[in-house]
Order: sequence, then structure tokens, then C-alpha cells
Amino acid sequence: MKVGIVGLGLIGGSLGLDLRSQGVEVLGVSRRERTCDLALELGVADRTSVSLSLLAEAEVVFICTPIAAIAPTLKQLIPYLTPPTIITDVGSVKAPVVEACSLLWHNFVGGHPMAGTAQQGVEAAQSDLFAGAAYVLTPTENTSSEAVNKVADLARSLNSQVHICSPQTHDRAVSWISHLPVMVSASLIDACIKETEPEVLPLAQELASSGFRDTSRVGGGNPELGVMMAKYNRQELLRSLSQYRYSLDKLIELIEAEDWQTLEAILCSTRAARPGFLS
Amino acid sequence: MKVGIVGLGLIGGSLGLDLRSQGVEVLGVSRRERTCDLALELGVADRTSVSLSLLAEAEVVFICTPIAAIAPTLKQLIPYLTPPTIITDVGSVKAPVVEACSLLWHNFVGGHPMAGTAQQGVEAAQSDLFAGAAYVLTPTENTSSEAVNKVADLARSLNSQVHICSPQTHDRAVSWISHLPVMVSASLIDACIKETEPEVLPLAQELASSGFRDTSRVGGGNPELGVMMAKYNRQELLRSLSQYRYSLDKLIELIEAEDWQTLEAILCSTRAARPGFLS
Repeated sequence: MKVGIVGLGLIGGSLGLDLRSQGVEVLGVSRRERTCDLALELGVADRTSVSLSLLAEAEVVFICTPIAAIAPTLKQLIPYLTPPTIITDVGSVKAPVVEACSLLWHNFVGGHPMAGTAQQGVEAAQSDLFAGAAYVLTPTENTSSEAVNKVADLARSLNSQVHICSPQTHDRAVSWISHLPVMVSASLIDACIKETEPEVLPLAQELASSGFRDTSRVGGGNPELGVMMAKYNRQELLRSLSQYRYSLDKLIELIEAEDWQTLEAILCSTRAARPGFLS
Repeated sequence: MKVGIVGLGLIGGSLGLDLRSQGVEVLGVSRRERTCDLALELGVADRTSVSLSLLAEAEVVFICTPIAAIAPTLKQLIPYLTPPTIITDVGSVKAPVVEACSLLWHNFVGGHPMAGTAQQGVEAAQSDLFAGAAYVLTPTENTSSEAVNKVADLARSLNSQVHICSPQTHDRAVSWISHLPVMVSASLIDACIKETEPEVLPLAQELASSGFRDTSRVGGGNPELGVMMAKYNRQELLRSLSQYRYSLDKLIELIEAEDWQTLEAILCSTRAARPGFLS
């Protein structure tokens, strides 16, 4: 079997390593010569090129570029494709990508492997990056089940847990557990550094320990990624931010009203609910 | 030297272990006979009693009860004290405690050792619990510097980092880094579980990983502690919640307006600011 990968970064590179280790022939395309050479050296691909024409032989192509480049890349790829070729992507937001790509190619299956590290680039590629992680596929009603099954089989061969749902359900779910936490956590840091009393902020910085470290972690992450989430999952993020603001306002009201009984009931419900998210 | 400890739980018990290991004679008082016996067995105190009269011999007494019991305990203790006796406490909110206790006893020094574990009770007592942790002392303008120095010396003997500030500065700083994060994090869990679309919540629970786990951790903690923070540090918590809500609203506005440049600038500033809290 021959699989194509466009975009040889952390995700594309790690995919290549795992697929090759199973005997799949991996054809890798990057815009940069240097990345193509590095990919060969690192064993990420069997053959590489800066030209998309290399992918004419592939049965399945993974588009592993940043979200903004997925549909434009597919458009450039089309002249080299034959009708049975399956195209999939690895973008972390699905509705806008699936909408654009499904119009361009009949055999497109949206995908989101939920794995990563803080590193970037093909040098950061690692084996087994996807093992044990969720891999969401988001077919529409027009996506052929054969295409979905083929991508699902490849995802399972990485030892990922495959989940299949609509693009909108995916975007709504990741808004809750990934995109909303970034905004909640960034707002915490932003509020703290707005403290104006001269003695307080330095003392707060001295006294901060694991509670602050954990709650602020994702809010202190990569700004480009944060903007990308907001830009491409804007509607779902605004929906979850609106519910979040409602929940926060409720707590503020209870503290203002000194309604300790209701506050305790809410904190009991959040304590009880959290383990449901830690499978 | 003889030191008294009222309230033989995690904090009081751990204090006893460390002080005894330095040759200090520790007198422990608990309301329960069983705790007194256990404290002797565990080596937390040299002598124990259910009666506060045991503490008549102590030079310094640590009140290690829950916040609500600190001033009432001091009141009951007064008949047994001689004027030079120094009283200190370990409550996590300082202004209301210091205000009440300073009226009851001239030689009172508010204190807050910022260490703990998820466990409770004298069985959870451990050596070196305070090593490397912050220990805040909150004298007022009427507190004798001799008393402050004596408690600071004891705190340093536990290998704690001593910080000295006003009760209000303490309460404001811990609101930012400890009490606000609990409310921010609890609101995140509360908002998620309010999701009404039947497919979305189960998928979100499946897909949640380290980002959600960290951001939700303190919001899934002990509800009684959360209520206690809100109750005793209400004014400072409301102040920091108000700034937090302002920061959150700003992010929501920017996402609504699709002002990605300003959003990125804020996320750059939160990324730059976070290391200042992780000393």
C-alpha cells in the first residue's frame, strides 16, 4: 500500500514513521527541499518531493498542513488524483475544513488525531505518538463508508481509538475540552497581571504553586494555536464561552449573596463530574 | 523550648513532627481522646490532652483548627495564658482571623504555611511538609517585632520561605493564585456538564486529555475548602472575580469581532507572564 503525506511536521512526520514501520510505502511532500531531505534521513518517508505530483501513486493522502492551508493544498493536488484516491486531513477543527474539502473532492474524510507534543517540525516526529490517543473521523452523509473504513483502519493501525461523529459534534466537543480551557486559563493570567497594587502581584507570583500552575498552563501556551482555535472554531467557542460566562456569573452571584449552601452544592457537582472526563 | 499545638490534623501533626525532630517539646491538644492517643503513637507530640490547660506551659501556641474555630479557640485558651505567650495560627485567610484574634490577645501573629496534601487528619502528618514552601506571617502595626521574629524563626526551622506582609495583602495575593483559580476551574466543569446536545457531552468526556485535566483540577477539589475560601476571603475573591470577568469579556469581544491581532497580542502577553508565577 502507498500512502501520501503533505506537510512533514510533527504530525505528518510521526504518521510517516508509524506507517512505514508497518510496511506501508510513504510518499512525503514538503514545500522545502531541506525538510524533504531531513524526512528521508529520519526515516519518515520512503520517497519525498517538493512537488505534489509525487502523490499521484498514493491510495490515501493525509494533508498535514496548518488548517488554513488544507483546502488550498487539496485544490493544488486535484490535477494529480485519480477518482478512487481518498483524501483525509489532521486539522483540529472540522466543520469549515470538511465543508470546503468535500466540495473539492468526493472522496474526502475529515480526521483529527488528538495527539501532539510542545515541539514542532519534522525533527520532532516520533514513533507511537498516536498510540492510545483519540482519532476522530467526521464523515458527512455523502462520504462513502468504504473511504471512512479505510482511514479508520489506518488510524487503528497507529493504535489510536477511533471515534466517528459529524464535523459539528466534533467541533462542539473539542470546544469544551480544548478550546474553551485555553480562553479560561488565559483570562486567569491576564486578570492577575492587571493587579495594580504594587505589593500584591510580586507576592502572588512568589506564593503561586501547583493550583495556579495547572489552571494557567494552557493559557500560557502557543498564541498562534490559540488564535487558530478561535478563528476556525469561532461559533462553537463563542457558544461554550457564553455558557461558561453564565456558570461563572452564577458563582459570583452566590458569593455576593453569601449563599454558601448552593455554592457548596455546585462545588460538589463539579467534584463529582470531573472523573467522567478523565478516562 | 515548649510549643503548643491545638488541632492535631495534617498541618498541626506535621508541625509537631518537625518541631520535635529539632528537640522542641511539643504539647498537643485535640478535642478527641482518640486523636490525642494517635498523636502520641505517631510521635507528633510529647504530651497530649483534651484540655487546653496543658498549654499553660507553652511559649508559643499554634492554633491549627479550621478557620471558623480559630478565634473561639483562642478565647477559651486565654484563661491559661501568661502575658509573654505568643499565639499564632495557620488559617489560609488572614484579615478576619487577625482582626478577631488581635482584639482577644496582644501577642498574636497571623500565619499561613502554604503546604498541604489531599489527605486530612493526624494520620496524614508527615515530616518536611513545609520544606521549600512559603510561610506567610501577617503582623499588624501593633504586633511586637519580637513575637514576629520568634514565629519566623520557628517557620524557618521548618525550612519554609518566610514572607511578611499585611493581612490584606496576603488575602489579595492568595485570592489571585489560589481562590480565584478554584472558581474559574469549577465554572469550566459546570459549563461543560450543562451541554444539552445528547451526543456532545459523552464525546467531550472521551476526548478530554491533559489540557482539560489540568484546567479542571482545582475546580474538582474539596467543596468545603472552596466554600471556606469564598466565605472568609469573600471581598478579595469578588474583587479578583470582577477583574477576571472583565478579562474574559475582553476575549469574548475580540473573538466576536474577529480581531485576531489583538487576541494574539493578549495570548502572547499571557505566555510571557506565566513563567513569573512558576518560581
